[in-house]
Amino acid sequence: MADRPTGGYPPSLNVLGFAIDHTDGKARLGRLTTAHGEVTTPLLMPCGTAGAVRGITPAQLRATGTQMVLANTYHLMLRPGAEVVAELGGLHRFMAWAGPILTDSGGYQVFSLADRRTVTDDGVVFRSHIDGAEVALTPERCMEVQRLLGADIVMQLDECPPASAGREQLAAAVRRSAAWAGRCKAAWEAHGRSARAGHPQGLFGIQQGGTDLELRAESARRIVDLELPGYAIGGLSVGEGPEAMRTVLETIDELFPAGKPRYLMGVGEPADILAAVACGVDLFDCVLPTRNARNAQAFTWTGRLRLRNAEHARDPRPVEEGCPCYTCRNFSRAAIRHYFQAEEMLGPILLTIHNLTFFARFTAAIREGIAAGQFQQRSRQWLARMYPQRPQR
Amino acid sequence: MADRPTGGYPPSLNVLGFAIDHTDGKARLGRLTTAHGEVTTPLLMPCGTAGAVRGITPAQLRATGTQMVLANTYHLMLRPGAEVVAELGGLHRFMAWAGPILTDSGGYQVFSLADRRTVTDDGVVFRSHIDGAEVALTPERCMEVQRLLGADIVMQLDECPPASAGREQLAAAVRRSAAWAGRCKAAWEAHGRSARAGHPQGLFGIQQGGTDLELRAESARRIVDLELPGYAIGGLSVGEGPEAMRTVLETIDELFPAGKPRYLMGVGEPADILAAVACGVDLFDCVLPTRNARNAQAFTWTGRLRLRNAEHARDPRPVEEGCPCYTCRNFSRAAIRHYFQAEEMLGPILLTIHNLTFFARFTAAIREGIAAGQFQQRSRQWLARMYPQRPQR
Repeated sequence: MADRPTGGYPPSLNVLGFAIDHTDGKARLGRLTTAHGEVTTPLLMPCGTAGAVRGITPAQLRATGTQMVLANTYHLMLRPGAEVVAELGGLHRFMAWAGPILTDSGGYQVFSLADRRTVTDDGVVFRSHIDGAEVALTPERCMEVQRLLGADIVMQLDECPPASAGREQLAAAVRRSAAWAGRCKAAWEAHGRSARAGHPQGLFGIQQGGTDLELRAESARRIVDLELPGYAIGGLSVGEGPEAMRTVLETIDELFPAGKPRYLMGVGEPADILAAVACGVDLFDCVLPTRNARNAQAFTWTGRLRLRNAEHARDPRPVEEGCPCYTCRNFSRAAIRHYFQAEEMLGPILLTIHNLTFFARFTAAIREGIAAGQFQQRSRQWLARMYPQRPQR
Repeated sequence: MADRPTGGYPPSLNVLGFAIDHTDGKARLGRLTTAHGEVTTPLLMPCGTAGAVRGITPAQLRATGTQMVLANTYHLMLRPGAEVVAELGGLHRFMAWAGPILTDSGGYQVFSLADRRTVTDDGVVFRSHIDGAEVALTPERCMEVQRLLGADIVMQLDECPPASAGREQLAAAVRRSAAWAGRCKAAWEAHGRSARAGHPQGLFGIQQGGTDLELRAESARRIVDLELPGYAIGGLSVGEGPEAMRTVLETIDELFPAGKPRYLMGVGEPADILAAVACGVDLFDCVLPTRNARNAQAFTWTGRLRLRNAEHARDPRPVEEGCPCYTCRNFSRAAIRHYFQAEEMLGPILLTIHNLTFFARFTAAIREGIAAGQFQQRSRQWLARMYPQRPQR
């Protein structure tokens, strides 16, 4: 079932190898090959928003089993600036991460963070949330910025309507995003390689359409027509609820070509990951592992632990028995609770290590389940243990 | 010149081996043997106030070349509580540090942090700065708390008068501290071993007396009479200025027995370390490496760098060329500045790693200088490079 993209772009741009080694229902066990090495899917990318995964060094990140990280075009173009990163050798060198990196296009942040913005068919003009400076982001500039940063996978500029958007607004965003995808492809075909290191970059299109299945289908059709190296599902996990998200996800396997990787943006809740993998999703990114760690919340196979709770004050057990992470091998729940009580940085650091290890082990278990043809059975068992309060479907 | 303490306490309490391998003037190159391994002196202990050296894991701390850490009796007795730490296996296990630990007595913190305090000959009663609870600390309780924590070196309870204290107040503090030293010794002789792990602990007396050389001599005489495993110089680096500090330090070699380790409390400025080593000091502790790291200040062999400064914005060089630390091997000054600008935890983390590596290398160079009989010459060269603005003496 191996498949290498052979779309309408020059052979030099056949940059992402994607081979599917096993399927189990719609779930896929894949291998994605980038200029910075091969990763196995399904996988979750932690967020390195400003060029750093919060709370840990890249060496510690590597030790958690994390394969690939996401960085943020919007944040990095505003500070320190894409040209600065390129001048310093590109993002891999800047952030000292030798593995694959995906850069988000900035569309989502422009629509959620920027102070004021004006959207036209040409692109979007906004004021930086950092210093109020006026910045223009067109599809062409978005590609240029990501070429300067030099990630392995780059994302098209898209328009992200708010969760409250009506059908007309959604439809307009679908059409504008599709038109921008075409312009991103043209800009990408002209270069296709990172500015500094010269390695190839793979461009993903982004599907929009809210929870409207017709618009989702139209959006998918338009970006698939462009024959891009991969496709993302955007505009979900923005408050539509798990049922609505699943209704959309159930359609993606037929909308996207089997041989290209599929990336569900912004999703990381374990139950949502399982549902999406069951629908044929390969890549995920989410702030949950790192953000919740900073709030003293640990993910485990039996649900979440709140380490600030008094019940842990004298508990000599690790966060999770059998977890091979540095935190669980060395620290008691009592010590971690103490560090949070004392506002020591070590509390967030230790739980970030644990949570990222948890998600690396969780996605590895998903891959093993697919390889064994037991993904659905195991998935039900994991859900029953992780969400004991929730009625099982 | 090797010397093992053979004072008036039982043979089982001959717990600290201290051998002097080289001297150069009054400067000494030593080996201190504890229940958790041998360290070489002079050395600087980073502060792990609440059972964690701020910003890094014990594994990262080990990799900086740090040999030994200080933890704080006052902070740990208030939170999480000495009994809790003992119940969890003692401080080494609690904080996941397998090397030697020294616990400060808490005297300094009681006198600087506690909300209200009443000092009598019996001890001190104070209100916790955390929750206002009333706590009593006597010499006996101080020893019991440190026995529960289980450090390798424990400190006597002392009275720390303010820098503004007059002669009478200083004299009273000297006499009270000496009396408390005797009671600490009696309590320590009754146990002498950590509560949980059962390993031996070495007790240090603390000299007080401000900048009054007569009181300093009296204070030293009284604690030396107790024949303790080591001696600390307290009450310096509290605003008296470098000249006054050096005047006191110049007398210590004749006041303390040659074969016992000497510990200058709270000192870490490189120039002060060099001056103190020249006077025969072996051990230091200081928050400078870690606190300054959190404030974006890096120590180097050519002085301090302020990494927030705009001049570093595009600088591809490491903090210090040739430094073997993780930070300098992987990150540019530009990236570190960016992390501070973006308020990413990685900024403080990376500079903490660098600064602790710097102090480990600096004290290693001091030891090599002593071994080579060139401590004074090299010391002058280091000072000229590190403090180019300062007239050299």
